[in-house]
Amino acid sequence: MLQSHLQDTWVAPTATPETADDVRDAVTGELVCRVSSQGLDLAGAFDHARRVGGPALRDLTFHQRADLLDAVAAAVRARREELYALSARAGATLTDARYDIDGGIRVLRDSSTRARAELPNAPFLVEGPAERLARGEDFLGVHLCTPSPGLMLQVNAFNFPVWAPLEKLAQAVLAGLPTVVKPATPTAYLTERLVRIVTEAGVLPPGTLQLVVGSVRPALDLLREQDVLSFTGSAATAEVLRTHPNLVSRSVRFNAEADSVNAIVLAPDVRPGSPLFAAFVREVVTEMTVKAGQKCTAIRRVLVPREHELAALDAISSELTGVTIGNPAAEGVRMGAVVSLAQREDVRRSVRRIAESGRFVHGDPDKVRVVGADPERGAFLDTLLISADPEAAAPHEVEPFGPAATVLAYRDTRHATDLLARGRGSLAASVVGDDLAWTAAFVREAAPWHGRLHLLDTTNMNQTTGHGSPLPALRHGGPGRAGGGSEMAGTRGVVDLMQRTALQASPRLLDSLAPPPSSPSSSPTETAETA
Amino acid sequence: MLQSHLQDTWVAPTATPETADDVRDAVTGELVCRVSSQGLDLAGAFDHARRVGGPALRDLTFHQRADLLDAVAAAVRARREELYALSARAGATLTDARYDIDGGIRVLRDSSTRARAELPNAPFLVEGPAERLARGEDFLGVHLCTPSPGLMLQVNAFNFPVWAPLEKLAQAVLAGLPTVVKPATPTAYLTERLVRIVTEAGVLPPGTLQLVVGSVRPALDLLREQDVLSFTGSAATAEVLRTHPNLVSRSVRFNAEADSVNAIVLAPDVRPGSPLFAAFVREVVTEMTVKAGQKCTAIRRVLVPREHELAALDAISSELTGVTIGNPAAEGVRMGAVVSLAQREDVRRSVRRIAESGRFVHGDPDKVRVVGADPERGAFLDTLLISADPEAAAPHEVEPFGPAATVLAYRDTRHATDLLARGRGSLAASVVGDDLAWTAAFVREAAPWHGRLHLLDTTNMNQTTGHGSPLPALRHGGPGRAGGGSEMAGTRGVVDLMQRTALQASPRLLDSLAPPPSSPSSSPTETAETA
Repeated sequence: MLQSHLQDTWVAPTATPETADDVRDAVTGELVCRVSSQGLDLAGAFDHARRVGGPALRDLTFHQRADLLDAVAAAVRARREELYALSARAGATLTDARYDIDGGIRVLRDSSTRARAELPNAPFLVEGPAERLARGEDFLGVHLCTPSPGLMLQVNAFNFPVWAPLEKLAQAVLAGLPTVVKPATPTAYLTERLVRIVTEAGVLPPGTLQLVVGSVRPALDLLREQDVLSFTGSAATAEVLRTHPNLVSRSVRFNAEADSVNAIVLAPDVRPGSPLFAAFVREVVTEMTVKAGQKCTAIRRVLVPREHELAALDAISSELTGVTIGNPAAEGVRMGAVVSLAQREDVRRSVRRIAESGRFVHGDPDKVRVVGADPERGAFLDTLLISADPEAAAPHEVEPFGPAATVLAYRDTRHATDLLARGRGSLAASVVGDDLAWTAAFVREAAPWHGRLHLLDTTNMNQTTGHGSPLPALRHGGPGRAGGGSEMAGTRGVVDLMQRTALQASPRLLDSLAPPPSSPSSSPTETAETA
Repeated sequence: MLQSHLQDTWVAPTATPETADDVRDAVTGELVCRVSSQGLDLAGAFDHARRVGGPALRDLTFHQRADLLDAVAAAVRARREELYALSARAGATLTDARYDIDGGIRVLRDSSTRARAELPNAPFLVEGPAERLARGEDFLGVHLCTPSPGLMLQVNAFNFPVWAPLEKLAQAVLAGLPTVVKPATPTAYLTERLVRIVTEAGVLPPGTLQLVVGSVRPALDLLREQDVLSFTGSAATAEVLRTHPNLVSRSVRFNAEADSVNAIVLAPDVRPGSPLFAAFVREVVTEMTVKAGQKCTAIRRVLVPREHELAALDAISSELTGVTIGNPAAEGVRMGAVVSLAQREDVRRSVRRIAESGRFVHGDPDKVRVVGADPERGAFLDTLLISADPEAAAPHEVEPFGPAATVLAYRDTRHATDLLARGRGSLAASVVGDDLAWTAAFVREAAPWHGRLHLLDTTNMNQTTGHGSPLPALRHGGPGRAGGGSEMAGTRGVVDLMQRTALQASPRLLDSLAPPPSSPSSSPTETAETA
């Protein structure tokens, strides 16, 4: 039975094996742990975050909070091998695990570096310059960004059990908010290990990091005006949360990063066989296979000019043929399992719906050859490349959250932008082409529908960090179906978690509120010094 | 029967006098007009905004859009006397009318000046500087802010029938969004006149400004992922809108500026009889009487140190005694009527609930002496000063939207910040005091609960623009009960209405997307040249 970390103590739920949820190994089907939040004192946990964790963080300066992130990063790095090993049980290859774990460490470090460079050594931020609001010189306006006396409840998806909590923790700590993490059940044991590693290192002030394993549905009634609910997961769950009566009546800040039907667009000028065409094919295959396609940013729709459709299907299929699938521990395996048998069923249903208007060009949803594992007991899937009718609804609406993508042929540029928009809002799209004028015009049409656009050309195709990588400096989140949220985005993301208050005041008051940057920080605390 | 302005034409609803709502003169009770949206083609209007208005605005540069705002400002200014005269029918004095109408003109002009100074002469904004995302020099990150191909639906409150639509129009036009305005029924005739003035001047491109008089409830199902719903009104209506299934499932951007129980705090150091104390009293009385207290930012709670409670009650009462109430057209009248008899009943109910834990120190909710009008047929109310128990719930929760305020005594600083927070999130609070250290510490506690803090001391008390004035440069909106929204806030407010997309691209693509600022703007249009 997986424990939760509440009020700085590890506690077990009161559930029995019968009332808890089983979590099984994605590769072998063995029982890994059981999960339940039954009997947990969530009200006590929230109160602890607000009474103990919040004040400790709010007293620190941004730079001191950045020190905490570095300490967390060092603690996780020191024990990352444990997390790699555990990741294999979720079906992840070592590359997948590094994506999640090293990615999480990187976002902590990047956030702390950025905070030291861009934020003052003070507990709050004054956004200037001061503006005169009246004829005299003594009535000035600025904006003051202060930490909210609340908490961040993280409700996370199963696919990034380490990166997601760390990415949100980084923003929360910098913004002065204690965190309560609720991991998704299928990979809760990975987040549990992460929280053990961090709490055993003793690097965070008491009350700033808690873990609730199991359902937090009852906790939604405990959220208040100063809290933030940071959600990653399905659009359907996002809807339920967004309309929760308590959240609505208290205007609880809600950030959603929902799944979306992301795309890649091959521009008309890219000739099959060219190096840029090869880069396009690599990008598609990487997105289908990394984490077995279980990334919220993964490419689901591959838009290609009609005249290059066959070439694209051939090239992608041929590349997929070389992907060895199986037990992540086995030699040469490039793609592992999806997270659970239920997830596999979900992907099968989704790809069948999409293939109704077309056909499977590569792979079979019901059969797969695997190395070092039982293909039925483990949640294995073949890589699935579909060719479908671009006018059908399913390819734009159904997201197979696994190793699957659909090739859709477009007639002309207008057709391509229209098809893109039929995703109704996405986290990310890639555009691959060397015709700068075409791409620039395309970007202006496509941008309002996307949180991120990744533009590959011959000059940068070997430098890219990849379509699927959210980066700490860049906004992560998208409009419409993608949930309308925003995460990371560098320092802006931190400030967006704080309360921005317009301040009308005399210059002497502004001086006394924010002393010149050279003076010592206003509230150094012991917590920070030990960190 | 009030007409609507749809698809650039004035149209009447199909309603009969029996099925429409009557709007009556606040001073005389006479019928002013009838209001209904029955039979209006709202789907056609939305389509027109998206097909005709949106593309026209999006093709313009920020500077060209600013020119449109100046033209609207000039058109309104040229005919503002009509709006002043009509305002009197809503119970407004000339001062009140100027607050609404001249304030609206000012926000247009301020927005255009700011856009020219702070935004590029281009249709979109690239937020830099570009950041290197990988080892090479050809993979850079910026954020691109582009206009959404949607519309802004304004659902406005009755109390600022001119300022509110203009303030939102200013932001929408600059962000490249066409607008559909839905005014509140009690003052819909003022917004109707405003839209006539603007459309008759012919200064806006077709499809960029439409007016729907009556209910737009059916139109909520027509909103899409790229639209914005900008709401001002009660927290109860905000809840209904926020949970509307179509808005939720499409992540339609929703901005709420709801009513809140705003406060003023007299600091412990301010001695009764001092000039700063007098400024505090003036601020309270102004907030109670301007627009008969019908401002979303108006002071409802007056927090004073216990030892100065009696002095504060005496001084405020004495000042209120000098306020002449009556027909705005009559000589010497300083305060007019509230907007309707229904509104008066609502205020009476609210003040009685608050007075349950205390008493009326000035005024009687059921009796008022008026000049030049019938106190029963007109919606007149006396100024109502209540003294109540600070521990009671009602003073912090109930908002009498009229000429009423409640004095609450606090014991010490901690008690004062606790009482403030019991408003559960407010648009604005004033703090009046000369002790800089006390005020600075107080501000840090109070800021997370407020959208704006107005800090008066002896140096700036004669320069203030007043507690109740939202200013174009400053964020308007507050957390929690105030709806969690944000309006104005200078250029930031404009950009917040656009889609911010993270862009990963080569330097050569970034150059072709946003040419150097000295080059001619990329899409000058005839529309802008005639504006």
